[in-house]
Amino acid sequence: MDHKGRLASVRLTLDKSHVDALVITHLPNVHYLCGFTGSAGALVIGKRDSVLFTDGRYTQQAPAEVKSARVKIIRKPVLTAAGDWLASQASLRRIGFEPAHVTVAERNVLSKAVRRGSKLVEAPPIVEQMRMIKDADEIGRIRAACKLGNDLFGVLLEAIRPGVRELQVAGELEFAARKAGAEQMAFPTIVAGGLRSALPHGRASTAAIPARGFVVCDFGVILAGYCSDMTRTLHIGRPPTEARRVYQAVDEAQQAALEAVKPGTTAGELDRTGRKLLHKLHLDRFFTHSTGHGVGLEIHEAPRIAAGQHEPLRPGMVITIEPGVYLPGKGGVRIEDTVVVTETGCEILTSCPKDLIVL
Amino acid sequence: MDHKGRLASVRLTLDKSHVDALVITHLPNVHYLCGFTGSAGALVIGKRDSVLFTDGRYTQQAPAEVKSARVKIIRKPVLTAAGDWLASQASLRRIGFEPAHVTVAERNVLSKAVRRGSKLVEAPPIVEQMRMIKDADEIGRIRAACKLGNDLFGVLLEAIRPGVRELQVAGELEFAARKAGAEQMAFPTIVAGGLRSALPHGRASTAAIPARGFVVCDFGVILAGYCSDMTRTLHIGRPPTEARRVYQAVDEAQQAALEAVKPGTTAGELDRTGRKLLHKLHLDRFFTHSTGHGVGLEIHEAPRIAAGQHEPLRPGMVITIEPGVYLPGKGGVRIEDTVVVTETGCEILTSCPKDLIVL
Repeated sequence: MDHKGRLASVRLTLDKSHVDALVITHLPNVHYLCGFTGSAGALVIGKRDSVLFTDGRYTQQAPAEVKSARVKIIRKPVLTAAGDWLASQASLRRIGFEPAHVTVAERNVLSKAVRRGSKLVEAPPIVEQMRMIKDADEIGRIRAACKLGNDLFGVLLEAIRPGVRELQVAGELEFAARKAGAEQMAFPTIVAGGLRSALPHGRASTAAIPARGFVVCDFGVILAGYCSDMTRTLHIGRPPTEARRVYQAVDEAQQAALEAVKPGTTAGELDRTGRKLLHKLHLDRFFTHSTGHGVGLEIHEAPRIAAGQHEPLRPGMVITIEPGVYLPGKGGVRIEDTVVVTETGCEILTSCPKDLIVL
Repeated sequence: MDHKGRLASVRLTLDKSHVDALVITHLPNVHYLCGFTGSAGALVIGKRDSVLFTDGRYTQQAPAEVKSARVKIIRKPVLTAAGDWLASQASLRRIGFEPAHVTVAERNVLSKAVRRGSKLVEAPPIVEQMRMIKDADEIGRIRAACKLGNDLFGVLLEAIRPGVRELQVAGELEFAARKAGAEQMAFPTIVAGGLRSALPHGRASTAAIPARGFVVCDFGVILAGYCSDMTRTLHIGRPPTEARRVYQAVDEAQQAALEAVKPGTTAGELDRTGRKLLHKLHLDRFFTHSTGHGVGLEIHEAPRIAAGQHEPLRPGMVITIEPGVYLPGKGGVRIEDTVVVTETGCEILTSCPKDLIVL
């Protein structure tokens, strides 16, 4: 990964943001800019110099991971140390921080530590903007994570049968993910059968897979730092007509949204595309969440594919398209792909079949 | 869980904190106070009324989980909705929020939404203070989670052998956890063999377990919402004298700290106890992290068992005691238990053997 290039890009924005230095505390942003993967760290980017502050747990790991910034192992809380260092640099007077990630309490700590006469400034989301457009290395990693996700779908199909607990299904999937090299799952695995399929966030539970009904499976892995995200919905037993109708509606809505993905389309327009189709079938009021989100180092990152979002799609963005319909007391369907926006449309990275699978 | 009682306790503190209402946004705090386990929500606690704001993904789940507060399903971001609602309540003029959890950007959103003339106030960590002392229900759940952790140790011993990848070991452990009902692992499982054992945070990697050396295994489950946390260090092959010496030192430091756990001892004193013992053996400079942390709904919560912490231990606190020694280029040892503070000392909830196991 081109950490030096990324840091240089951030440095170029300092003047435009009217700051002398930027304090990065959001760990995925720290990871993105300098490669550090520990659980505590603050990266200070000045015009000439960048310093990563972390603690004694990372004495060996931090210097091994970080080549683009100096590493300081400190005993104080990282923000206090960063503030003290900033206070020692007379030329750094306007200090930018990430308002979306720094808590009010952390801001108070930083505020106390920095030099009298210095000023803390809410910086724009520079790193999030950069991260939105993935470079070739990143797309390669996300592709590999999605490919692993695709391969794991076979494990799911083997594991799901009536009477087996959702947790068991999730466990088999996750074990296979680990054996294939996944660092972690990207989020708590969703396996939601029968009536539970109507819960959009139905994490795998002790409930048994029922003899009939939908099973929503939504899972992702983290591989070499990057996330995958895919949802498929299966049906146990012969699906009644209404279930087929709902599945087909979601499938078509998802297809319509996928076809609308291209540079220039805004996130809000994309959100409307699938929703409009469900509206015609009077199902849109059961589509209770947004259409998707960016995927990368984090499972949810910019851009949000939701109503009112004016961000235009651009090549290199990696987003999910995941409409769903949830009928309380009956069941639900969601179909989700992770795609990369190309010059002309998109490439789907999650390639598992989307025809309704009946087990 | 006594959500009504907990909300009533918070309500009693409103006057003392000089606020008319409190906005709780930290999700473990929301969970603690009203039982909601979703991934987006804000709980507003007024003197008479409490309202949980969440979104359309939780239309069914939120009312099923939350009995102690009204549930409002909203389409706006939860903080905007909470702010709008607060603005509609003329009697609520001083609005407390959680400075340790609300970002500067969120504070700005809230600030814009609330009524002109209202004032946002940084509230003390009321809920964290309450959560520090576990009630009988909570201790029961943490005990059950730790018992599952104990049982899983057998899986680890079976899985670890030279040549097997750390990820495979972690995968087998996690699969067994799932089958036993764990909702998730409490944190990324650490399996760090050989030289990697010198990394205090050596998450399971693609590295193979070596033919000789320490293997640090640090893992926890979440069961019925509550975390467990335990570390054991094994040795593959016959340990050389220095390895035995280091293991024994950490074991004794841990034992000394365990014996120092009792009501009235401060967290800082407890941190010093094990450190002092390692100091005598000239090993304290390799003990590069703090002695422990509270465990409950979160894997790291109050109190911190670290230098400079003046919090006195009290019955019902659940904390970890986890000294470690990490010799760069050689290897490391950590031994960790989760304990509940009792009237006279502590009860160790993680009961796996601590004599050096040689595989």
